[in-house]
Amino acid sequence: MPEPHDAIEVIVAKRDGAVLSDSQIDWVVDAYTRGVVRDEQMSALAMAILLNGMDRREIARWTAAMIASGERMDLSSISRPTADKHSTGGVGDKITLPLAPLVAACGVAVPQLSGRGLGHTGGTLDKLESIPGWRADLTNAEFEAQLESVGAVICAAGAGLAPADKKLYALRDVTGTVEAIPLIASSIMSKKIAEGSGSLVLDVKVGSGAFMKDLDRATELASTMVALGVDAGMHTVALLTDMATPLGLTAGNALEVRESVEVLAGGGPADVVELTLALAAEMLAGAGRGDIDPAAVLASGAAMDSWNAMIAAQGGDPHAPLPVARETHVVAAPSTGVLTRLDAMAVGLAAWRLGAGRAALGDPVQGGAGVVWHARPGDEVAEGQPLLTLHTDESERFERALAALDGGFDISAPGTSYAATPLILGRIG
Amino acid sequence: MPEPHDAIEVIVAKRDGAVLSDSQIDWVVDAYTRGVVRDEQMSALAMAILLNGMDRREIARWTAAMIASGERMDLSSISRPTADKHSTGGVGDKITLPLAPLVAACGVAVPQLSGRGLGHTGGTLDKLESIPGWRADLTNAEFEAQLESVGAVICAAGAGLAPADKKLYALRDVTGTVEAIPLIASSIMSKKIAEGSGSLVLDVKVGSGAFMKDLDRATELASTMVALGVDAGMHTVALLTDMATPLGLTAGNALEVRESVEVLAGGGPADVVELTLALAAEMLAGAGRGDIDPAAVLASGAAMDSWNAMIAAQGGDPHAPLPVARETHVVAAPSTGVLTRLDAMAVGLAAWRLGAGRAALGDPVQGGAGVVWHARPGDEVAEGQPLLTLHTDESERFERALAALDGGFDISAPGTSYAATPLILGRIG
Repeated sequence: MPEPHDAIEVIVAKRDGAVLSDSQIDWVVDAYTRGVVRDEQMSALAMAILLNGMDRREIARWTAAMIASGERMDLSSISRPTADKHSTGGVGDKITLPLAPLVAACGVAVPQLSGRGLGHTGGTLDKLESIPGWRADLTNAEFEAQLESVGAVICAAGAGLAPADKKLYALRDVTGTVEAIPLIASSIMSKKIAEGSGSLVLDVKVGSGAFMKDLDRATELASTMVALGVDAGMHTVALLTDMATPLGLTAGNALEVRESVEVLAGGGPADVVELTLALAAEMLAGAGRGDIDPAAVLASGAAMDSWNAMIAAQGGDPHAPLPVARETHVVAAPSTGVLTRLDAMAVGLAAWRLGAGRAALGDPVQGGAGVVWHARPGDEVAEGQPLLTLHTDESERFERALAALDGGFDISAPGTSYAATPLILGRIG
Repeated sequence: MPEPHDAIEVIVAKRDGAVLSDSQIDWVVDAYTRGVVRDEQMSALAMAILLNGMDRREIARWTAAMIASGERMDLSSISRPTADKHSTGGVGDKITLPLAPLVAACGVAVPQLSGRGLGHTGGTLDKLESIPGWRADLTNAEFEAQLESVGAVICAAGAGLAPADKKLYALRDVTGTVEAIPLIASSIMSKKIAEGSGSLVLDVKVGSGAFMKDLDRATELASTMVALGVDAGMHTVALLTDMATPLGLTAGNALEVRESVEVLAGGGPADVVELTLALAAEMLAGAGRGDIDPAAVLASGAAMDSWNAMIAAQGGDPHAPLPVARETHVVAAPSTGVLTRLDAMAVGLAAWRLGAGRAALGDPVQGGAGVVWHARPGDEVAEGQPLLTLHTDESERFERALAALDGGFDISAPGTSYAATPLILGRIG
């Protein structure tokens, strides 16, 4: 059968500012998956989309075409309502770890397919893999069985889900076309819709440590994704949350697991608790269980029980000692005063350079590496007191991590007033 | 040695509207030639250049980098001044055929490296290859010897000239990035500068049958190319000429050779003669021989002598019968009146579909195929008189050729006044 379109026709249409037809979009996504549209053609199209944009209908159709490129999961056999959460990625963003078992403990099932980290933001699977024995790869049958019995699964997405997105994401990564809102939104939402959850909460990060540096672009991305979710029949809400400052007091794999367990035990940093409870409330409301108070369930210890069950179900020992880095280096406060800024990107880069993240897919990561900060913006600090502790197995990594932190924080005169930025900047849905 | 730049850095810079540095341009062209920058990366960069542009300095540097990717010819051993001509391509544009021997007969050497046709515009080499025995491929030594002895060479460019351009041109052809003025200008001028001619005349076509459909864009392209030539130390002038109407009365390989020989014999269509003489005058002036009158040389028969010598030197028999198509089909004038429009693109597409051109590089072409028109805009025509004759070896080609001509001409009421468009629309240099 002859092809109904050709690559140059579609590229030239978008290049010249036209709106692509449903038929052009369906064809180009499918033909790219089949290899008929070549990488060099799709990268030219991606650049034209980045520079000339797509309207809502085009983005919805593009997303549908990427879903149609692979399998869709069917969670209709699960006896509880389902709710999923996706974060666009930030520094110290370990929220999925306490959140999934907390929501499960509230009676809503959480099917969470996650990724590994690339660059300065950590990956949820990398964090969980620091737990001895825990494994990320489950079959579809194991995934569904655990979702029914434990109520929460965090695992790697299988290769069958939205293969067009996998191929396109890898291409965008090497062609300078990652930062296109239509392509970011359709990439995230094609996977989330294909996962089959009944509801979804998006945590769209804004600030230096996030993909979206300003609120306008983050709002545009969030609105685009919410519309895609709603159009696909999934209850979808987005929170816009601050990522100028890193979340909690730790960035790094085992360091963040430890902090997450503190939250599940009723402690932990206030911002991590606040965001976990806010997202849990949205997930419960989306799943029709807005009557449940997640704070009460967290205080009851039921979320910790769900955590232990979830880790054990995937081969992990929730009580085993977590890896600890061989070397540490303390950065002392250079003056006495008020910490008025701690830059998320600087901390994320430092943690990455210490070995918590990878430069290329497939690289190993260090379980114990990362950064701990001993003060948060607004705190008083005294000259010489420990401000940050760097952790790594390889002391030669300290130099480049310290370079990343250079200029990454401000200490103002003692008594300087500090107006805290709200953690939750907005809500769409 | 580590690479001084990386592809994503260069792509993102142009994507975000920055001016590329000399070092970035030198690197990306060289690295693409070496295969370090991949096709899918260069196509994203080409799309960003198309949509965000390049300034004069960037285009000059890009051109220099493409020249540096290969060999440069040295014509310093030629005893006469040298002048080259390049047309951006049009329908019925056989001007190189009478022009090169005419200028040679005036005492200026013409080193003309030409291409084959792709799409609706014919290629000079395809036209000459309809002459029995004529061959397009010469070694560098044969090229220089013929240039010295005959004074004119029209042959295929060797593989050693601007290999970066060859690779990039093939990529642009399949990625919807042909129409970028910086890339068109640098592609043409890198080859023309590497050829080593002392002067150059550009024939930039404007209108439906040309690459540039409007005068503004054609003027921008012409100015860009003239600046590149002048900066490289080559005397460079551009004429902007009409391509709304096809040139002469024929489009097709042997058909155009026959018309060119008529011009050399002192006859031929007035527009072909006019443009040949105008371009010859520019080439002579550029080579410092503005004192010579090309019309007098044409009338003397010396240009025909040069043509015969040039064809014979490349194995051709200038007196052998040219191929004639097996089948013809006459399109009669549907009404009596004044022919007010004959569309160059319609005629070019029809000639292409009749077998005069090729759809893909390497396809064969028919020597005898093409279109002859029996009236030019402004001429009175009578209902039923032959307006066009289609020529092909395969009668099944008539249907699609006739479809291309549908709507391709207008006949207005008898006595309608017709204001002819000037053939030469402007001059830059």
